[in-house]
Amino acid sequence: MRAVDVLKRKRAGAELSREEIAFLVNGFTAGEIPDYQVSAFLMAVCLRGMSAEETVALTETMLRSGVILDFSDVSGPKIDKHSTGGVGDKTSLIIAPLAASAGLVVPMISGRGLGHSGGTLDKLEAIPGFNVRLDEKRFHEVVSEIGFAMVGQTEAIAPADRKLYALRDVTATVESFPLITGSILSKKLAEGIEGLVLDVKVGSGAFMKTREDAETLARSMLSTAARMGTKAVVLLTDMSQPLGTHVGNALEVEESLAVLRGEGPRDLNRLCIRLTAHMLALGGIASGVEDGERRAQEELRSGRGLSKFLDMVRAQGGDPRIVDGGVLPRARAQKEVAAEANGFVAAIDTEMLGTAAMVLGAGREKVEDVIDPGAGLVVGKKLGDEVRKGEPLVTLHYNDPSRLFEAEGMIQQAYSLDGARRPSVPELIQAVLEP
Amino acid sequence: MRAVDVLKRKRAGAELSREEIAFLVNGFTAGEIPDYQVSAFLMAVCLRGMSAEETVALTETMLRSGVILDFSDVSGPKIDKHSTGGVGDKTSLIIAPLAASAGLVVPMISGRGLGHSGGTLDKLEAIPGFNVRLDEKRFHEVVSEIGFAMVGQTEAIAPADRKLYALRDVTATVESFPLITGSILSKKLAEGIEGLVLDVKVGSGAFMKTREDAETLARSMLSTAARMGTKAVVLLTDMSQPLGTHVGNALEVEESLAVLRGEGPRDLNRLCIRLTAHMLALGGIASGVEDGERRAQEELRSGRGLSKFLDMVRAQGGDPRIVDGGVLPRARAQKEVAAEANGFVAAIDTEMLGTAAMVLGAGREKVEDVIDPGAGLVVGKKLGDEVRKGEPLVTLHYNDPSRLFEAEGMIQQAYSLDGARRPSVPELIQAVLEP
Repeated sequence: MRAVDVLKRKRAGAELSREEIAFLVNGFTAGEIPDYQVSAFLMAVCLRGMSAEETVALTETMLRSGVILDFSDVSGPKIDKHSTGGVGDKTSLIIAPLAASAGLVVPMISGRGLGHSGGTLDKLEAIPGFNVRLDEKRFHEVVSEIGFAMVGQTEAIAPADRKLYALRDVTATVESFPLITGSILSKKLAEGIEGLVLDVKVGSGAFMKTREDAETLARSMLSTAARMGTKAVVLLTDMSQPLGTHVGNALEVEESLAVLRGEGPRDLNRLCIRLTAHMLALGGIASGVEDGERRAQEELRSGRGLSKFLDMVRAQGGDPRIVDGGVLPRARAQKEVAAEANGFVAAIDTEMLGTAAMVLGAGREKVEDVIDPGAGLVVGKKLGDEVRKGEPLVTLHYNDPSRLFEAEGMIQQAYSLDGARRPSVPELIQAVLEP
Repeated sequence: MRAVDVLKRKRAGAELSREEIAFLVNGFTAGEIPDYQVSAFLMAVCLRGMSAEETVALTETMLRSGVILDFSDVSGPKIDKHSTGGVGDKTSLIIAPLAASAGLVVPMISGRGLGHSGGTLDKLEAIPGFNVRLDEKRFHEVVSEIGFAMVGQTEAIAPADRKLYALRDVTATVESFPLITGSILSKKLAEGIEGLVLDVKVGSGAFMKTREDAETLARSMLSTAARMGTKAVVLLTDMSQPLGTHVGNALEVEESLAVLRGEGPRDLNRLCIRLTAHMLALGGIASGVEDGERRAQEELRSGRGLSKFLDMVRAQGGDPRIVDGGVLPRARAQKEVAAEANGFVAAIDTEMLGTAAMVLGAGREKVEDVIDPGAGLVVGKKLGDEVRKGEPLVTLHYNDPSRLFEAEGMIQQAYSLDGARRPSVPELIQAVLEP
């Protein structure tokens, strides 16, 4: 088999065989097929698409390029959640302890943020001492002891995905339903889980800006997971405004703790309960989603979810005193960005809002950028809220004043006010899709 | 400007600006933009196409990546011919001396063969002593003295094309109308010519298998040449059978000499006269194509074309005794491939016939393969010819008997006979396209 012939077939729109896909992906991972052939392949996939069978072959090859973890000796159903990401999406920090506390095993491998979008690992690292780089043995121990752990992708997990993603990032081939499907599922299925709840975000702060794109990705992931024997369900959820109010790493840990104390904002709380409920239903711990909601709420109300979270923090080297406030990093200065007119919040360019947080140091423009864990912003006005001229829309948290001006301008640009009437607000949970 | 952003726009089908195309192509040529980004770009171009403006920008950038030769001190119109190539296409060896002998200046830069298709340089190198690697100064001298010279692309000519072509070859991005246009025209216009006759081949032995593809390429080249201020005309000519009868390097030199002596096969002779006539008309030496034909025929009949060819051979170090026979390399052995039934030749898979010649050593499967100048084949039966079982279809010329069996099988497979009636034969010159 020659790479150029496989490329020629993909270019012409032919369906590649399992062997052809494995040949390219494994050859690339082993360093035998050069990146310039693979980038041409990736571009052809972006423009030609992939069939369901091809997507499964890609995902399986990527999955099998590394180790598949085995938690069969830990009792309880192994279920995880994945979100396609957005602004203020800190649900993992809340859901994983709730689910574990209700009896699930959650071996959660997460990623870092890039651009406007935050990453679970960066949020966890805002906790003093917290270590996301557990080795495989210690990861297993923490999952066994606590019921869940939250770590980064190791070298051993889906190395094909790491290499492919690095190439996609510099060749404008990130946006592709089959490539995204392969990347997400190869990493998640390497956790050795039985079921996966997928939170596919849609709206101005999400990677999928339209409902149609979000549904296409959702269907691709559901079909691939099903063909690979993993139970899955997708929630299509709104990202046309930030989730909750806090954006930035320490700020999001703070807000997650608030939710676990029963004091969180309504939208974030509701989504976390629903996602946990679906995990419990998939794992067979709840008889259905309603029962799952009841169970999740009980874990929250009882405080068991919060103490489960603190157990995990402790087990991964973090300072559990975060719960009392005071040890989480805080930015030295705050600045309110005030509304320039009266009206109702009609739209929020959430990607721009996330980019403003990034500009202040909460995120990375390039992979090698260093994050300022205390930086970020707190949203004062959400969609549909009435606002008077001079009232704060957003409070910026910053250490470096040099980029304040740019961030303020972005906030003003991100908010659209309607002077006439209260606009309708998109549903938080827009659809539940099952295979 | 970032390469990944340009890629993203091309991927989405946007029209790139002149600056964006120059940024990518010049950055790649200078080694500043990595091949993996350029191969993704090339694949996006293959699948998204390029507008006329983009194709001009590409061609101009490639042209200006190197030197543009200047023959303004040599008197006479500077006109060249380019063929998209095929099997048995040795017209350059005949046309260039006829045109030069009639008063044109022809600074011909040619290429090598690959796969089933031959290359002018390989044919010339079958002549003992012939040097296709003249430096710029010597090239200029020979053109000044003789009126034409035939050399290979130097390092200084369109380096962007050389780098891009090497990448296209291994990334399945060779077949693309704008990329082919850029590659052909950047090299030809670097000759500093005023006009160009393009012979676009169509049929089973050509790169363009369909009339539609051939016309699309022709229109792309005509429009690009016109926007760049170069006169051009396209002849769409038949390649559903070999041109003439001889295929292979020394064999094709032999047949070219036969044409120049007035003894060549009818089809080859006719096409050479027509192509020369168009060159003479473009250059203003003939009042039109009919007048051009008359002039070309006169150069042939008088023997001036032949002696012009021998002058050039001498000037480039070749042995002019080729004209008396005996010094051209000849394969040690011949073998006739006989028809297995009675009938009329209804079709010839000309690519397969060319591949059979390659297998015997007349061509290269890979760029680094070494050519056997004496190897090749002579076609005994062409389209429409009647043939009786046992009569030779083709005579193979070979030195290495180990691949004879494979070549014989290919010849049998390439010929389709019709037992019932004489099939119609495609027109040799199918269309003349002008801007």
